[in-house]
This record gives sequence, C-alpha cells and structure tokens, in this order.
Amino acid sequence: MTAVQVIERIKKEGGRMISFESFTGGLITPETAINNPWKYKFTWNPRNVVTAGQSTAKFLEEGDYKYIPYQQLFERTTPVHVPGYGDFEGYANRDSLKYMEAYGLEGVKTLLRGTLRFDGFCHAWSILVHMGCCDDTYPMEGVAKMTHRDFFNSFLPYNNVLSLESKFMKRFNLSAGSPEMEKFKWIGMFDEEPIGLVQGTPAQILEHILNKKWKLEPDDKDMVIMWHRFRYEREGEKREIQASLIATGDDAVHTAMAKTVGLPMAIAAKLLFHGKVKTRGVILPSVAELYNPILKELEELGVELNEKEVVLNS
Amino acid sequence: MTAVQVIERIKKEGGRMISFESFTGGLITPETAINNPWKYKFTWNPRNVVTAGQSTAKFLEEGDYKYIPYQQLFERTTPVHVPGYGDFEGYANRDSLKYMEAYGLEGVKTLLRGTLRFDGFCHAWSILVHMGCCDDTYPMEGVAKMTHRDFFNSFLPYNNVLSLESKFMKRFNLSAGSPEMEKFKWIGMFDEEPIGLVQGTPAQILEHILNKKWKLEPDDKDMVIMWHRFRYEREGEKREIQASLIATGDDAVHTAMAKTVGLPMAIAAKLLFHGKVKTRGVILPSVAELYNPILKELEELGVELNEKEVVLNS
Repeated sequence: MTAVQVIERIKKEGGRMISFESFTGGLITPETAINNPWKYKFTWNPRNVVTAGQSTAKFLEEGDYKYIPYQQLFERTTPVHVPGYGDFEGYANRDSLKYMEAYGLEGVKTLLRGTLRFDGFCHAWSILVHMGCCDDTYPMEGVAKMTHRDFFNSFLPYNNVLSLESKFMKRFNLSAGSPEMEKFKWIGMFDEEPIGLVQGTPAQILEHILNKKWKLEPDDKDMVIMWHRFRYEREGEKREIQASLIATGDDAVHTAMAKTVGLPMAIAAKLLFHGKVKTRGVILPSVAELYNPILKELEELGVELNEKEVVLNS
Repeated sequence: MTAVQVIERIKKEGGRMISFESFTGGLITPETAINNPWKYKFTWNPRNVVTAGQSTAKFLEEGDYKYIPYQQLFERTTPVHVPGYGDFEGYANRDSLKYMEAYGLEGVKTLLRGTLRFDGFCHAWSILVHMGCCDDTYPMEGVAKMTHRDFFNSFLPYNNVLSLESKFMKRFNLSAGSPEMEKFKWIGMFDEEPIGLVQGTPAQILEHILNKKWKLEPDDKDMVIMWHRFRYEREGEKREIQASLIATGDDAVHTAMAKTVGLPMAIAAKLLFHGKVKTRGVILPSVAELYNPILKELEELGVELNEKEVVLNS
C-alpha cells in the first residue's frame, strides 16, 4: 500500500486524520556499515547529500507552523525506530506543507516529511554545517595546494599554539575518544593528504574528500528505508498505523536505490506501451490507474510496504 | 588621515605592512544607550542590519585564508578597545580580500574588515540567527494573526508542557537573569502583542518588531566609530599604529551617520561644481585630489581621524 492508499482507506472507514509523518533514507545495510563509523555511504547524488537542507524546513506540528533553519536542522532530529532494523534519526525535509493537498491531508495537526540516517550521523554532520564546509556559494582560494587538514583548518580561527585537533574539539565541545572524533578521523579530516582538486567551493571539496571513503565498493549493499506514521481518530478512539518499506541492494550496481526509483518508472513505461494507461497529460503517480499495477508488480519483485495498526487509547 | 594615506606613508618611510584590521560601527552614544540593554538602535538601513552577514566572510589571518559562515559569524568576534569609548566587539565583513589591491596591501599576512557593536550585542544576535529569525527567503504562514510570542515560538519545537521561555532558555543555555534574556525581554520576544503586519519573511517581521524599540527618538544621538590597526616592520622593529574616528550626531535627523556618509559626498559635489576635480570618469575616493580637500573640510566640520603609534618590540 502507498501512503495515499492508507490515507484514503482511513478516511473511507470514517477516520479523521490527525497526523502524518513520513521519513525515507537511502542508507547502507548494517553489514556494509561495519567498520564505517558514519554508517553511511553515497547511494544518491553526492552533491545533493552535501548541500541537503540549505533551504529552511517548514512543517506542521500539533497545529502550529514550524520552521527549522539550516543551522538547526541536523540538531532537531526525530528518533525513529523501525522494528527489526534498529534506531534511526530523521531530519525534516524542505517544505512538508506542499504535500497537504496532494495527499488529501487538509485539517491535520501534524505533517512532517523527513530523511532518515543511522543514529549519530546527524550530530556529526551538523558540525560540518556549522563549520561552513557545505557552502556551495563561493570558490575557495589556493585549492590546488590544499590538504584535507588545510581545508578544515580554514574554517577555524588562527592559533599559533593549538593544533587543528585541539581547536576543533574545543570549538565543538568534543572529547578525543568521542564518536564524532572517530567519524572525523575516519574521513581524513586531520590528514596531510592533498585534496586532489584544482578549484572548488567548500561543498565541492567536502564531497571530493567524503567520496574517498563514501563511494560504494563493488560488493557493498545499500538499503532504502521508508517509514510512515498515520495517526487518526475513529469513533472516539485514537489509532495509529505504522508502515515501512525496506529494500536492499544486491551490489554497487543493482542498488536498492535503483530498484525503488527505477522499477516504478520502468513498469509505468511498460503499462503505457501496452496501452494500459488511459489518463493523458502530465500526471502524478498518486493515480490508482498507475499505482495499483505498479505496486502489484513491485511486490512480485520483492519491494513491499508492511503495515502495523495499534489503538492508542479508547 | 585616511587608512590609505597611513598605509602610503608607512611604505614611503620604508615600512613593510604586515597586518591591517579595520572596524566600523554605526552605534548610539553611551548616554542614548542608557536603559537599552542592546546598546543599539537602527541608524542605518534596518533591513541591511537584520540580514547582515548572510554571505560567508573571507579574510586573511597570519597568512592563512579564513572563512566564517553566517552561523559562526556573531560568535567569532574580535575584541576592540577604543580609548575613551570603551569595549566593543567586531564581526568580520563579507570579503576583506577585495581591499588588498585598492589599499595597496599585497603581501600582508592579516587583512580583516569588520563591523563594531557594543560588548554583548553579538552573542544575543547570534541566537536570533540560529533560531532562523533573520531568514529573508520565504514568506511565513498566518502572519496577520501572529503575536511577537507566536513568531519566536514558530522557530522552536512544539512542547505541551514547557513555556516558550523555558524552551528558549534550554535551547540556548541561558539563565533567567542573563544579559541575553534581559535583551530578549526588552524587545518583546515573549509578549502577546500583535506583530502588526499582514505578511512577511522572518527578516521582515523581526525588523518590524525590533523597530518598535530600535527606532531613533527625536533627541537620541548616534555615534559612528571607526578603528584601524596597522602593523608593520621597519628596520627590524615591529610597529603598530592605531587610528580611530568618532563622530557624534546632534539628534535623530542630524546624525553622525548622515554627517560621515553625506558630508564627503556634498564636499565632493562642491569641488566638482567649482572645477576643482580634474580627473574624469567613475573614480574611487582614494584619489588624493578628492580626499585631501574633503578631509580638510571634514576636519573643520569636526570629523577627524586620531592616530597613535607604538613600537611593539625591537
């Protein structure tokens, strides 16, 4: 079932939608994440990963409009537990409000869409944001001669006594053995290694440095996780449905990302080719004529949304 | 003397420029600042004050290129003491590097231009930046019905137990009696007062709220402070010149800002009218033909740069 189908069914059965939260993450499998302190690799456009979140996130929370600017985004995360897959953290995506009409959610109190990462990712990423490493608006000076260490040092004040490590830990209140320092050492923040670019914005340089460690190796497996929470009221009872989709890649080519993004498009093309789509013009996939046969075939291909319903109180 | 004249004289006398730092602030006089915990009012385009610093600051520090992103700008300030006028803090302005050629400063190790505020301003402003209140890129929802309190609350998470005050103090690690809380209470952050706008971006709304308290009253006096520090080496000696200009307004109309910005322009127009400018085309005021007579007349009008030279070590 898609989120739209679940919402339509709830309403058809006399339920009143109160809240819809939806988080999706392009991640790597726990096995691939072993020995990777970020538990993350690029499985999607790396440039978009590095510059993610630069426009203010907007959403509805308990009836109030809420805004999270870039500088707060990776600090104000939502914990998400996906049974059988562990603990994740979700950060808010750009403008959740624009899904209100498309999903038939007018009148809900909470509407939030976001992105999932494994626990611990967001705080470390937030430090890179605060340093200014994700800025894509200006070219840096002297890139050709820069090492990883020079790059990160250019965002911290000059000090003729303290090392980069000391300045950095002091500024971001980190201890030497902290999980954050483990992550930054692992990506080579403190290494005298040449960057290997002749020019670039901070975001382009950071992407290049991260790609040395975050590129999928041939046998790496990625994982797409989607998690929805629907809260609604029916006959005086508050109810909740949680739904999740987990897709796993086979290797660095046949990725979960390729399956979940590419297969629906391929199936739609096939339907069109066989004359099974009657609607004309530019249409969203939230039309039954499209999503019914696509979901059916996806299920046969092993991509399926699981649901669990609970009554919260009576 | 202008900064350019001082630099030219240093070089003429065989000195080698090592460092140039220059801070300017459009402020209010200490008397006008009494009972104003920010010690600040708008004496310049309010919109520019609210959106100041949104592009990354670039400068040279001890031979290294340094970059300060918006989210760090008001936290990484330079303390500036102006004899007879007290303690200020300076934050870096956009791109200091572009003054290298214009001021003849090729080869210096440190080049930094910035803006001055009275002590304590920047940390409080930094909190507004972190909340997202200075964002000018999107219109907020439901502005017509919003109070000051609603506005600031929309940047903090929903909580059905904690008050706005508690959430805010917790988020920014402030105590109830802190100088920061005094400042935020004074601008009406926690008041149930209607904003008084029907639409607006966060920056427009913040400007409107601040203007209720930061507008110059008829008898308020503003003050422009400019402070330069030149460091150079001559015959093996490290030397330093500090120069400062202080101009004070008469009232809310005849401001120091109007004098320092308007008089040079008026004098230049007079010189041109009397045929005393020979150069043609668009020219910078760093040309002797312009700045010599302008500085002379400014001095007669009471606007003057004071200098003090010290030998740092021999």
